[in-house]
Amino acid sequence: MPEFLKLRTAEEAWEVFLEAFKPNVQVERCLVADGLDRVLARDATAPHELPTFVRSTVDGYAVRAADTHGATQGLPAYLDVVFEVPMGALVGLALGPGQAALVHTGGMVPNGANGVVMLEHTARTGRALFGGGSDVASLQPDFEPFGIEVYRPAAEGENCIQPGEDVQAGALLLPAGHSLRPQDLGGLLAVGITEVEVARPPRVGIVSQGDEVVPPEQEPGPGQVRDINSYTLAGLVRRAGGVPINYPIAPDRQEILDELVQRAYREADIVVITAGSSVSYRDLTVHAIDKLGAPGVLVHGVAIRPGKPTILAVCNGKPVFGLPGNPVSCINIFQRFVTPTIRMLLSAGPLPTRTVQARLERNIPAASGRADHVRVRLEQRAGETWAIPVFGKSNLIFVLVRSEGVVEVPLNSNGIPADTVVTVTLDA
Amino acid sequence: MPEFLKLRTAEEAWEVFLEAFKPNVQVERCLVADGLDRVLARDATAPHELPTFVRSTVDGYAVRAADTHGATQGLPAYLDVVFEVPMGALVGLALGPGQAALVHTGGMVPNGANGVVMLEHTARTGRALFGGGSDVASLQPDFEPFGIEVYRPAAEGENCIQPGEDVQAGALLLPAGHSLRPQDLGGLLAVGITEVEVARPPRVGIVSQGDEVVPPEQEPGPGQVRDINSYTLAGLVRRAGGVPINYPIAPDRQEILDELVQRAYREADIVVITAGSSVSYRDLTVHAIDKLGAPGVLVHGVAIRPGKPTILAVCNGKPVFGLPGNPVSCINIFQRFVTPTIRMLLSAGPLPTRTVQARLERNIPAASGRADHVRVRLEQRAGETWAIPVFGKSNLIFVLVRSEGVVEVPLNSNGIPADTVVTVTLDA
Repeated sequence: MPEFLKLRTAEEAWEVFLEAFKPNVQVERCLVADGLDRVLARDATAPHELPTFVRSTVDGYAVRAADTHGATQGLPAYLDVVFEVPMGALVGLALGPGQAALVHTGGMVPNGANGVVMLEHTARTGRALFGGGSDVASLQPDFEPFGIEVYRPAAEGENCIQPGEDVQAGALLLPAGHSLRPQDLGGLLAVGITEVEVARPPRVGIVSQGDEVVPPEQEPGPGQVRDINSYTLAGLVRRAGGVPINYPIAPDRQEILDELVQRAYREADIVVITAGSSVSYRDLTVHAIDKLGAPGVLVHGVAIRPGKPTILAVCNGKPVFGLPGNPVSCINIFQRFVTPTIRMLLSAGPLPTRTVQARLERNIPAASGRADHVRVRLEQRAGETWAIPVFGKSNLIFVLVRSEGVVEVPLNSNGIPADTVVTVTLDA
Repeated sequence: MPEFLKLRTAEEAWEVFLEAFKPNVQVERCLVADGLDRVLARDATAPHELPTFVRSTVDGYAVRAADTHGATQGLPAYLDVVFEVPMGALVGLALGPGQAALVHTGGMVPNGANGVVMLEHTARTGRALFGGGSDVASLQPDFEPFGIEVYRPAAEGENCIQPGEDVQAGALLLPAGHSLRPQDLGGLLAVGITEVEVARPPRVGIVSQGDEVVPPEQEPGPGQVRDINSYTLAGLVRRAGGVPINYPIAPDRQEILDELVQRAYREADIVVITAGSSVSYRDLTVHAIDKLGAPGVLVHGVAIRPGKPTILAVCNGKPVFGLPGNPVSCINIFQRFVTPTIRMLLSAGPLPTRTVQARLERNIPAASGRADHVRVRLEQRAGETWAIPVFGKSNLIFVLVRSEGVVEVPLNSNGIPADTVVTVTLDA
């Protein structure tokens, strides 16, 4: 197909687009508790160290490490347990030589102590069996002191977390552009950060076009089809971290299309038009886009299969895309160009993708002059993962529904022979 | 650590749990347009075929294939274009011999035609240059007929989609248990399914316990720490497809803990208690759980590091979990036991995970008697992905924040030597 030879490659098209598009990231505040998957607009740093006090990591006895030196099963160290560390409260008491304090996991190691022996490495001896027979005085009202034998020496700092060991004051916790995972919420809250500045999710206006397209709840008449792309695209927008806005279906009349596209352009940060893929529709789309602002349409036609009739535009700094109307092409082009644009407006890295290695079930023939994206489903056969191409015209929505991912055949390759192990990029 | 030898392995613990837990999936209806990530409770089948009429896949001319047989550039076929197929409307007209109709991509192929030639393989000849010089009559008011030369023969059915080619009436579209992807929304809507029955997302009640734990917005006093786990777990619940309910922090008093746990048990489908990991806290948790109903606590202690002090329980059919209080252990055990439980209550398959192959930067020592889960971060070095273990006590939240995934060292292995290529399961 020689017509493809004059088309831009996906990489060239993207470069042209990036030259004209400088993302302007909008910032808003959000509660960390509601912050899952939000993207940080600023570096988060620790306002204070963590932990703020020496914590025990075990159930046991806080001790002066020197008091346990050389302790063994045969020759234990004998200590007086003179108080119990209360959880979550100030320990005003300090240990003296030969003394120990009962401490629970997460409890504060008291002054005078510099190590903790685990409960398992001690035994209670009862009161007053040591120290010459005299009673041991409790440092805590209502605490009944007792004696213990310690069978292992505690090294200095053993079973303790030191102040700042989790994080130092002023340390970078998470960089701008980071997408918040469940544990990040915990990390921020741990140092008292309850609100953060995040990128406002870009609004993506979606306009579906075509005299033959009717809303899904409507029974299509002869020659009519239900709107598919608006809802598939809305799902993909959410996946990428954006907020979809669906507009009414535009008929093939320039002035109505213009009006809907202009409304989307005013209300959204990105405009996506899924046109019928016929030549006449594409012309309507190009005219509608060029009226929005300079520079307008930058790329018209890309050497990707499926997805050739693609339009990339920037109008007064706002990205506008004309996607092919065929569902398979539409999703393919959205993932290639619109998803990364949403991520840029979130100041975020690429959307994480899942890939699997699989053995190709049959040949994928060469597609000269185009990068070919072949949809596949996966099957387990005798412990091996196979990728089975779901061939079918790109206007069949069930080619998408029946498949799980895509194998890319690079531009100007000779296709891929059966039995090759290929990388399948799974659908989100 | 011989104490581990008497603990159940993760697999044994899960088996014991599954014997007592029979998920009761709740069903509700939802709009397909709002259905992203919802899990189908019933098979979805096609109420009618798709497409419902013969559609053109290109811009071109609908023809009687026989009229174009043998056509070449040198010896074209001559046809009369007598009408244009309107988009989205009934075509009442039929082609006669020697006639053609202009058709756009997605348009209906009219009666009498059985193939479409692409615009690119034709040329207009002007009116009345053929057929002996007489004018051609238009079949459509306002349509100006014209002649074309056709340079390639159209095979029967060429550039057409046949009725039912996308999907047959009655065909299984998506099976029960399937989690709806963007393209599935399009697929269901394409055949007019605008509402589906889906699993109601299980509510997961989260109770954090500990005298030392304060809400994140509160300035912790001496010996106090902010609640981390409630929010990390809420994020993980959302990831798995559930709805988190956070309860107030329970102090270490049996009667208050009992009350909160009973409230969560009444209001939620799954109860998760993150106790302090000390022995005394665990006893409170066990007592609170056993009061909820039979059989109660099934497993107490699992041979996983980190995460040993884990409680699995089923009370009157409802799953209840006691998770360790240490953040790293807590997340590890949640993913191992609670996430699959949420998926079962959704009647869904396992949550998709992302894995990468990476070269281990340093030795991971053996951990006898336990399956060891070592957190790692990833680094690109000279084109290769390296997994760098983030060693650190399991009570450090920033071990989680600084890492990106987990390497599992199987039970009773000898550890993993540096430079081994390992599978890293990435965090969601």
